[in-house]
Amino acid sequence: MSQNQTRAADVIRAAVLGATGYVGGELLRLLAAHPDVRVTHATSERRAGQRVGEVFPALGAAGDLTLEALNPERVRTQADLVLAALPHGASGPVVGALVEAGLPVIDLGADHRFPDPEVYAAAYGHHHPRPDLAAQAVYGLVEFARDRIAKASLVGVPGCYPTATLLALLPLLTRGLIDPADGVVVDAKSGISGAGREARTESLFAEVADSVRPYKVGAHRHQPEMAFHAEALSGRPVEIFFVPQVVPMSRGLLAAVYGRLAGGVAPDAEALRTQVAEVYANAPFVEVLPAGRWPETRWVDGTNRAVIGVGVDEATRRVVAMCAIDNLGKGAAGQAVQCLNLMRGLPETTGLPAVGTVA
Amino acid sequence: MSQNQTRAADVIRAAVLGATGYVGGELLRLLAAHPDVRVTHATSERRAGQRVGEVFPALGAAGDLTLEALNPERVRTQADLVLAALPHGASGPVVGALVEAGLPVIDLGADHRFPDPEVYAAAYGHHHPRPDLAAQAVYGLVEFARDRIAKASLVGVPGCYPTATLLALLPLLTRGLIDPADGVVVDAKSGISGAGREARTESLFAEVADSVRPYKVGAHRHQPEMAFHAEALSGRPVEIFFVPQVVPMSRGLLAAVYGRLAGGVAPDAEALRTQVAEVYANAPFVEVLPAGRWPETRWVDGTNRAVIGVGVDEATRRVVAMCAIDNLGKGAAGQAVQCLNLMRGLPETTGLPAVGTVA
Amino acid sequence: MSQNQTRAADVIRAAVLGATGYVGGELLRLLAAHPDVRVTHATSERRAGQRVGEVFPALGAAGDLTLEALNPERVRTQADLVLAALPHGASGPVVGALVEAGLPVIDLGADHRFPDPEVYAAAYGHHHPRPDLAAQAVYGLVEFARDRIAKASLVGVPGCYPTATLLALLPLLTRGLIDPADGVVVDAKSGISGAGREARTESLFAEVADSVRPYKVGAHRHQPEMAFHAEALSGRPVEIFFVPQVVPMSRGLLAAVYGRLAGGVAPDAEALRTQVAEVYANAPFVEVLPAGRWPETRWVDGTNRAVIGVGVDEATRRVVAMCAIDNLGKGAAGQAVQCLNLMRGLPETTGLPAVGTVA
Amino acid sequence: MSQNQTRAADVIRAAVLGATGYVGGELLRLLAAHPDVRVTHATSERRAGQRVGEVFPALGAAGDLTLEALNPERVRTQADLVLAALPHGASGPVVGALVEAGLPVIDLGADHRFPDPEVYAAAYGHHHPRPDLAAQAVYGLVEFARDRIAKASLVGVPGCYPTATLLALLPLLTRGLIDPADGVVVDAKSGISGAGREARTESLFAEVADSVRPYKVGAHRHQPEMAFHAEALSGRPVEIFFVPQVVPMSRGLLAAVYGRLAGGVAPDAEALRTQVAEVYANAPFVEVLPAGRWPETRWVDGTNRAVIGVGVDEATRRVVAMCAIDNLGKGAAGQAVQCLNLMRGLPETTGLPAVGTVA
Repeated sequence: MSQNQTRAADVIRAAVLGATGYVGGELLRLLAAHPDVRVTHATSERRAGQRVGEVFPALGAAGDLTLEALNPERVRTQADLVLAALPHGASGPVVGALVEAGLPVIDLGADHRFPDPEVYAAAYGHHHPRPDLAAQAVYGLVEFARDRIAKASLVGVPGCYPTATLLALLPLLTRGLIDPADGVVVDAKSGISGAGREARTESLFAEVADSVRPYKVGAHRHQPEMAFHAEALSGRPVEIFFVPQVVPMSRGLLAAVYGRLAGGVAPDAEALRTQVAEVYANAPFVEVLPAGRWPETRWVDGTNRAVIGVGVDEATRRVVAMCAIDNLGKGAAGQAVQCLNLMRGLPETTGLPAVGTVA
Repeated sequence: MSQNQTRAADVIRAAVLGATGYVGGELLRLLAAHPDVRVTHATSERRAGQRVGEVFPALGAAGDLTLEALNPERVRTQADLVLAALPHGASGPVVGALVEAGLPVIDLGADHRFPDPEVYAAAYGHHHPRPDLAAQAVYGLVEFARDRIAKASLVGVPGCYPTATLLALLPLLTRGLIDPADGVVVDAKSGISGAGREARTESLFAEVADSVRPYKVGAHRHQPEMAFHAEALSGRPVEIFFVPQVVPMSRGLLAAVYGRLAGGVAPDAEALRTQVAEVYANAPFVEVLPAGRWPETRWVDGTNRAVIGVGVDEATRRVVAMCAIDNLGKGAAGQAVQCLNLMRGLPETTGLPAVGTVA
Repeated sequence: MSQNQTRAADVIRAAVLGATGYVGGELLRLLAAHPDVRVTHATSERRAGQRVGEVFPALGAAGDLTLEALNPERVRTQADLVLAALPHGASGPVVGALVEAGLPVIDLGADHRFPDPEVYAAAYGHHHPRPDLAAQAVYGLVEFARDRIAKASLVGVPGCYPTATLLALLPLLTRGLIDPADGVVVDAKSGISGAGREARTESLFAEVADSVRPYKVGAHRHQPEMAFHAEALSGRPVEIFFVPQVVPMSRGLLAAVYGRLAGGVAPDAEALRTQVAEVYANAPFVEVLPAGRWPETRWVDGTNRAVIGVGVDEATRRVVAMCAIDNLGKGAAGQAVQCLNLMRGLPETTGLPAVGTVA
Repeated sequence: MSQNQTRAADVIRAAVLGATGYVGGELLRLLAAHPDVRVTHATSERRAGQRVGEVFPALGAAGDLTLEALNPERVRTQADLVLAALPHGASGPVVGALVEAGLPVIDLGADHRFPDPEVYAAAYGHHHPRPDLAAQAVYGLVEFARDRIAKASLVGVPGCYPTATLLALLPLLTRGLIDPADGVVVDAKSGISGAGREARTESLFAEVADSVRPYKVGAHRHQPEMAFHAEALSGRPVEIFFVPQVVPMSRGLLAAVYGRLAGGVAPDAEALRTQVAEVYANAPFVEVLPAGRWPETRWVDGTNRAVIGVGVDEATRRVVAMCAIDNLGKGAAGQAVQCLNLMRGLPETTGLPAVGTVA
């Protein structure tokens, strides 16, 4: 039919690199519902030759694609655009080859989140493989970089913790609501899928169930990422003390940002809430709750939404802003698709779930 | 815009009665994604006057509707079609009034699952409120009643346990694979949302977590429902011993049906699998796994899918067929929307999720 | 046998008031293993006449006691000592009558946690029923009040959040490690059993699973309790901003206390750790981890232990101390039994579990 | 003190081989509370040199033992008795050496569960390493082998599934309540700790949560074990069709045994219940529920108890018996300690928990 032919001509052929991790799987799930994208290529080193559906039976008909080992030349012939969900360090060289071959790349790994290769090197303990690309990549925090993403050929999708933290923190900084000199504490709780699908003892059900587990307190690699972009996007440097914790759930992430009310600002939760809401007035996936209400992670499960609550304690002038996201959604695959939409001139919301489940 | 106006004219205005339970909430979630339905009316006795989004923040923009107390006259003016998710016994009288007023009704409660009011009375311990309607209602097990549902004005959506059980059992009966005289055992495991959203001690987190709980062994009201329709749809009476159990998960249901291989049938799992797959050759939501593989409930979470595995033990000639569904999806709201599609002449799959999540 | 007769004469006959909540049930569990205590009386208004084992089958032989409605006169004749796990507000009058009748009382409710009735009234919104008793009660935070508890006839057992918070916070204050003028933030995560065994929608499995839920942010009644006793036990007033959160587990509680390193103190985690460890040198149930390690709640599940980790961020001079307890153990029933031991001159550890499970 | 010296002289010095798996860890937990046993030696190949407490912080003071690589000679000098929780196949040769050296051994692995090496070979796919020892080992299902265990020098502790299944099934067989010729179906649900502590993708939290997973249907190695001992202990051969399933919990196991009422036996649940209860009249850890009640796994969590429910369906003459155990307790480490008690002439209940938790 001619209509279908016309449509097929417009469809974006996407490659998903690293398709058998949780982020890769979520990309496949989301893209299966995207009206303008077709996943034509998916890679996995260990499962090459198998069908996606053997790895992820939940994907149903969307699992009907054979996994291949990663070969940049083959990617180039199979796809118009690349989403890379590769392990830390592995994406750098591959992405370089693909970008040079003219393919737009959305990198969900850590290698293109820092324009400054020195900052990257300090955080990750080794030189950046392609300093030239680091500087060229756009940090894909959509709500604060729409225009730049729309023009980018290489986007570094923010980490899950930085996404939730920055969405809560940036309005406080840009509106002058907290005192940057006082620093902030970020106490974050995440589902275990954030640790990936590697077979590790500490990710076993019987190790994660019935427990809260703090880890890498003050030493997580997402801390320099948050600090760098908090300053880059607000113009105000702020010290961040970051405390990540695993809680017994598969998905979901809540970041609580604690700061001190700036001098001269009244401790009025409703007024703070209004200011934060103004920042997100045109952000279709961000909801700012009424003062006195706080987000639960299950509200955003499976969606690309971010829900924010903000408050202030009159006695202590302590400000708290919380942001709930799905770590695999807005914290990874969802935000990547949001970037894809902008890069292709599509409405930001195209194909992205915004309604969650009630149980 | 004229295109939108045209579309608006075609949109089905749906009322959801009992919108604040888990089934009601899932209906709202699914219908928010349905291209041809708009929920124009939602009722709740206890939460009347509140926004749906106050009850279910997960629904996001789909929660922007004010709940009203149930008033059949008001339903009639607000909606073209009714989905009723009311407590046992409450739906009978209301549904009667609405059907008489000419509204098509899809009843997710138990009152219209038995054409024979006597069977209903035996199972539920009281007379059927409207024996005339009982006989008129169509049992909405889509895969075995498409044509009748398409013509129905009143559909009784099957219970969650009967849906999974019958999807596994009926092919064994209709193809003569098991001996009906031997009877079957159904050992089923369900998430707790099947018990509803009532505040009951036995549904508390700390009572359900870390436990398997058998209940109403051999005495559950879904047993007569299964038995009645197993015979009605296969022509072969079969005694069912039904054992329901709650396991620590919010959603999902697995029914294992155990029977005895019929005399003269070879104990060949692959051959059995082929026969079952033939029954569902044209069922877009039913997948029959290769012999030797078995379904997990998380594969169907959030979807309208049913995944079936079938096997046979050579030594004991014991046959087992398992079916995994989402109790709120194919086991309730999803199947209701599937019925709606058929009643309205839409493709059966319209607006229904078939791709699940990977974590 | 004469030995048994001698022993029986020494056994403490204990009454548990409010025996069918989670705290009451945990008291019955712990006391069943206590060599010097026999529970001779257990009360419940709603389940009076039933056996304890009908309510809590997990208790096995320890459930072989018939519940009675609360009658102070009857308690007096049946018991030598009382443990009251009654709802807020209900314990005041009952406890008064029992104390006047000469019975030692350990109150696990909130009514005897504040020596100052005005502070109580501000926190709970009504006058204290017995201001005279409020002043007489000893706050049962064992590690900081052993001597006073040993002489007390009325002990108010600390709340779960204050227990974990104060165990982490008090060493920082008494050793001058943090600047009290800067205030502290307490971000705490609790299992749902802390909300009690009432049948409430928000405690249902399907509402708690897969979610983190902040609640009563800056407005929880445990905040004034923490603040009052932090000052009372350290001599240093400190403002506390308290943020409680429910995470998907039945038991367990982790409190993270964030403060600012005091001027003149070096940001040396090992040195801080040593100071905190010194405070608990003689506390058999408190373990202070090596610097750089952090406690998980499952390590203390089912025990009376508290595990503490402490650290400091050099860049921001931010101090964090975390304490993990079992909210029903050290956070309620365990600490009550620890108080009982002291009140009776028994070794503090008598009958209390200190070894947890590995899965 | 002389009393302590006397006691020390009596203490059994136990070695735990394979101490860092879930079964090994549970042994350490249980033995820490045993008045007559001291664990003097614990082995692990991968964690040799570390403290037990580094692997299992939950063990508290019971973790204060350094792990060593397995060396039978060293075991012999350090211990009076051995508990081996080694992987399948690894225990055979080691146990042989230790038994020959005169040490009593309790083997929690599979290598000494079959007196007939041919049955072992068929189930495990390789020859038995020591056929002579296979014949000498006693199957440690305590309730049916007390006298033989008391005299044994080598005990093979039953698997978790066979323990629960045989406790439910054997009374039905020995009392002639079901027809063995009809065979039985065993539908069992287990927590994931039964799969061990190996780092495997399918045991990850995000793979196990929110799901029921059937596996090895009709093909699990515990099936021949059940069938062999069902016949050996009852004198009646019975075909078993065994269906294991993982449910989202760390611990706990429920086995449902479905059979057909024997000819001539009245379908009277109360009478059946009485007969089953008689079988366990002298079994301190087995409770048989009143007719119409069914066990939940959380009732036995952390204990050595087994709770059994039994019923019969009049219409279908179908009998069901269910047994709930803790797979790490009565299903492994608890039963091993029960065997140890018998082997040493101690009361069967010594040191074993019989009271579970209420949340």
